[in-house]
Amino acid sequence: MDATAAATAEVLPTNIGTEVLGSDDWDSVENDRTPKTDKEKVVVLGSGWSAVKFVQNIDTTKMDVTVISPRNFFLFTPFLPSVTVGTVESRTVVESMRSLVQYDARPFDRQLKDKLNGIEKENFETARFYESACVKIDPKTNRIFCQDVSTSSEKYTIAYDKLVIGVGGAPDTFNTPGVRENALFLKEVDDAMNIRRQVLEAFEGAALVSDPEEKARRTAFVVVGAGPTGLEFAAELNDCIQEDFSKLYPTEVEASSVTLVSSSKSLLSSYDKRVSEFTGALLGESDVKLQTGARVVEVKPSAVVIKDKESGDVFEIPSAVTLWSTGVAPINVVKNFIADVPEQTKRHGIYVDRQMKAFGTDNVYALGDCASVMSRGKQMIDDLKASYEVKANECVDGGYCEIKDDLVMSKAEALSLMDDLAKNYPVSKSFSMAGQYQDRIYAILDRDLSEQATREDFMKAIDDCYSGLRSLPPTAQVAGQQGSYLAKLFNGETEKNFVYFHKGSMAYVGQNKAAAQVSMLKSLLPEFMQKIPILGDDIVLTGTLAEWVWRLLYLDMQISNRNKLQVAFDWIKISLFGRCVSRY
Amino acid sequence: MDATAAATAEVLPTNIGTEVLGSDDWDSVENDRTPKTDKEKVVVLGSGWSAVKFVQNIDTTKMDVTVISPRNFFLFTPFLPSVTVGTVESRTVVESMRSLVQYDARPFDRQLKDKLNGIEKENFETARFYESACVKIDPKTNRIFCQDVSTSSEKYTIAYDKLVIGVGGAPDTFNTPGVRENALFLKEVDDAMNIRRQVLEAFEGAALVSDPEEKARRTAFVVVGAGPTGLEFAAELNDCIQEDFSKLYPTEVEASSVTLVSSSKSLLSSYDKRVSEFTGALLGESDVKLQTGARVVEVKPSAVVIKDKESGDVFEIPSAVTLWSTGVAPINVVKNFIADVPEQTKRHGIYVDRQMKAFGTDNVYALGDCASVMSRGKQMIDDLKASYEVKANECVDGGYCEIKDDLVMSKAEALSLMDDLAKNYPVSKSFSMAGQYQDRIYAILDRDLSEQATREDFMKAIDDCYSGLRSLPPTAQVAGQQGSYLAKLFNGETEKNFVYFHKGSMAYVGQNKAAAQVSMLKSLLPEFMQKIPILGDDIVLTGTLAEWVWRLLYLDMQISNRNKLQVAFDWIKISLFGRCVSRY
Repeated sequence: MDATAAATAEVLPTNIGTEVLGSDDWDSVENDRTPKTDKEKVVVLGSGWSAVKFVQNIDTTKMDVTVISPRNFFLFTPFLPSVTVGTVESRTVVESMRSLVQYDARPFDRQLKDKLNGIEKENFETARFYESACVKIDPKTNRIFCQDVSTSSEKYTIAYDKLVIGVGGAPDTFNTPGVRENALFLKEVDDAMNIRRQVLEAFEGAALVSDPEEKARRTAFVVVGAGPTGLEFAAELNDCIQEDFSKLYPTEVEASSVTLVSSSKSLLSSYDKRVSEFTGALLGESDVKLQTGARVVEVKPSAVVIKDKESGDVFEIPSAVTLWSTGVAPINVVKNFIADVPEQTKRHGIYVDRQMKAFGTDNVYALGDCASVMSRGKQMIDDLKASYEVKANECVDGGYCEIKDDLVMSKAEALSLMDDLAKNYPVSKSFSMAGQYQDRIYAILDRDLSEQATREDFMKAIDDCYSGLRSLPPTAQVAGQQGSYLAKLFNGETEKNFVYFHKGSMAYVGQNKAAAQVSMLKSLLPEFMQKIPILGDDIVLTGTLAEWVWRLLYLDMQISNRNKLQVAFDWIKISLFGRCVSRY
Repeated sequence: MDATAAATAEVLPTNIGTEVLGSDDWDSVENDRTPKTDKEKVVVLGSGWSAVKFVQNIDTTKMDVTVISPRNFFLFTPFLPSVTVGTVESRTVVESMRSLVQYDARPFDRQLKDKLNGIEKENFETARFYESACVKIDPKTNRIFCQDVSTSSEKYTIAYDKLVIGVGGAPDTFNTPGVRENALFLKEVDDAMNIRRQVLEAFEGAALVSDPEEKARRTAFVVVGAGPTGLEFAAELNDCIQEDFSKLYPTEVEASSVTLVSSSKSLLSSYDKRVSEFTGALLGESDVKLQTGARVVEVKPSAVVIKDKESGDVFEIPSAVTLWSTGVAPINVVKNFIADVPEQTKRHGIYVDRQMKAFGTDNVYALGDCASVMSRGKQMIDDLKASYEVKANECVDGGYCEIKDDLVMSKAEALSLMDDLAKNYPVSKSFSMAGQYQDRIYAILDRDLSEQATREDFMKAIDDCYSGLRSLPPTAQVAGQQGSYLAKLFNGETEKNFVYFHKGSMAYVGQNKAAAQVSMLKSLLPEFMQKIPILGDDIVLTGTLAEWVWRLLYLDMQISNRNKLQVAFDWIKISLFGRCVSRY
């Protein structure tokens, strides 16, 4: 497994600017591909959710658009866990970028707007696409450096007026030893196909031995990380083993195991609590073994070393195939960009304002997983601090605390401050996935304060909490909405800041059951109506009904009619004939 | 391309016994997997047409059957050219061996026979399957040596009572320099996926340059060999370029080229003359460039060196991707077996009698591309020689020739001998693909004899002709029929020799046209009725009607209902949305 695993980790197609491509002396590059045009030159990096939604909505009559990505297709990432076991096929989850830049690929509402502007299929100007990796961004000279990743490895430069970075992220290994060498990731379609191959190899290998213990070792699968990807992979793999492999590898299936390791005590910890609890309960009943509150300290070629966070015990469990799915880290080209721009103070993404513009630049924008938006969360915290000051002033005036600079307020008062704030930021509740921000502050208050809070304690609690906040989750929804928003901003159709509408979270949890928290209806309404209580509440569905909602919504989210038809067909095929176990 | 091409050539999954697996000291292998059973132990090597048809028909109540192949799935080889451009998807053309050994996979007529023998789904004994490569056959001790090719590389032995070798063949490079390093083959599903990737890479790479000549170099495709695989690949690739790429890579398509190189003057030279001529004419009108009567003397990384057979001129044509598709050579384990058994006098396959048993063994059988049947062609030649002797004796008695030992007969007499023979061997005409055997003998007579033939001349002409005869073509039809036949022989359902029924030959020749020579009706009739002239004639179809016949027959030939449904779906999808150009 070692060689393959390492290869996967290094050749991630979206890893624009990885060392793999070499970082020779770029000054010597004479080849320039800057388009000759009078229009504003917009260069888009990436072919994921944000880049596609941007390109599908940008007005190409006003701007000259070049899209550059080492991957010449869009990938419907939510289906990656399904591809690992063949519940949907790999070709089903991709769509060519060259098709997606065509007029026919533009959303219906955009085509209507185009028509109003006199743009029809006949006179539509298609964005340019280059299959290349951007290996360096030079914001000082407004140029990027690229390298062909197909047949040649030619280097070239392109100058931009505006640069849109939507390159996604790389797997975050937290520098855990052995991960790059011995674990697999699930970010790209090649990863999914590789996992499928390795799972089948594991069973074929187990079929060759008769010792039950050796059979068990060869079919032990460990998934590290209980976010949506890790959880859905564990669920899909377990389904596949129980439903299809049981007929073809009966004795091997009896010996096999799927273990899900989660560092927090719950699964899907960023989801609504009800979703999270249902998932834990369902998986608890299934054949998937759970290791919660456990941190992986090393991945060995055929085992995973785990530390129980509570007891501190360290132990090893066998693992023939280890999937590492714990979060997102910036890719090299982004890391280097952040290092080059002094105003970029975050290490986990390009820090952008609420119009997606990178701090420290005038014309560089970042979207999706590689962006870190100055969020409403930050504003919320600022407002919280301001409220505190008001209270402090009131206090001095009213006189219930002793010294202004060392204000002490009761815990009840501190909590009521929080409640006031929550009322002013209803949306914060939805994008924080069921109010975990507030939960977090409450927890810190509980932990750090006795019955009274000094200013210092209070501010520290808030800052502690804030440092743990992720601006927005690294999801398809966020990236897609940012892409559409930025196209509108560039088109001159809006001047407002970006606002994220959380439409819901869903996860397939196995055994034909899903868990979904849906607030679509709410998010589709104008903002002032979202406060109406009956609409405002999220709907939480679990079980088979949720599976159907999951299927319908994912079908609807497909980026082309071809994908839609194929997804439907794959599902029908699997329900009729089971999954294909041919290994290649 | 170099590295990938080399990898493909070396890791052909059916290349059982390639050096890749190492040939360590097998005497030290202690691991034995011989099944404990009182039944006769039948071991089958391979997962292609012959092995599958054998397993689907063997009576597992009488025999203990173990199937061993490094590829755990059957591959519908006739669709490989379609997979290279995505007209059908890779998963469509495969079916798991573990499914195919189940009761449900047995043909309808076999299930009826099973029922008569009291075998139902419930009490059916499934054949064992091991995903391993057989690296050595020891006919002296009745053992084979195998190596796991999945997770471990464990070695083991298995003893057999009867061994059935159906391992197929490897590409025949004729030791042409550069083929292994710089050309691609099309034998396995991985090859097809690799070609698809490289074709797309070529167009993406061409899109990055503006110089038309460099664009042309990057999109020059050369196909060496105009048999069914090479021809269909050229046709499918050209269709794909003209129908789909033309929309997405317009300037690159204008620069691109597909060249088909054929060593003979015609295409599909083993097919019916009418099929061959139609194909040549249609391709002559299309965008495919033809180089007939040309031998490839070297394959360079980005060019092919060609020698015109007539003029002797040597010239080079650019080639970004070269497909080598010129014939079948034995794989290493077969080569070694042939070398070990003195009675094996042919180098191109295991020489078997007409009950498929390898000469020089009592219990080893070979099927399909790796077998060379002592054919009716051989009998025909023997009979021809005997007829000559009869004529010679007649001649002495009648006195029209001078000396018995140096018989001279007129050319007309020699040809009438041939005609007599043809009457006695009607089937020879069909399996020789429209009588090319006779044509060949006529040609030799024309060439070597003036108006009279000496015994020496005549015998030499016959032997010349025979040396050029291939016993049976390396096709799916031949392999499949041999597999079914051998199962019947083992089951005790027949004692007759194997007889090949040629059902027809078909080729897709591009632009929604096919050429087909079909004699299905004839072959389905009892032997004595095959002589009725109106039924006996082959039907030759060309054009769009032939395409529909091609589609229907291939659909019908699919090995499972899943495959059938998927083929139909793929065709509908492509007709609606075109081919997918995502490169991975």
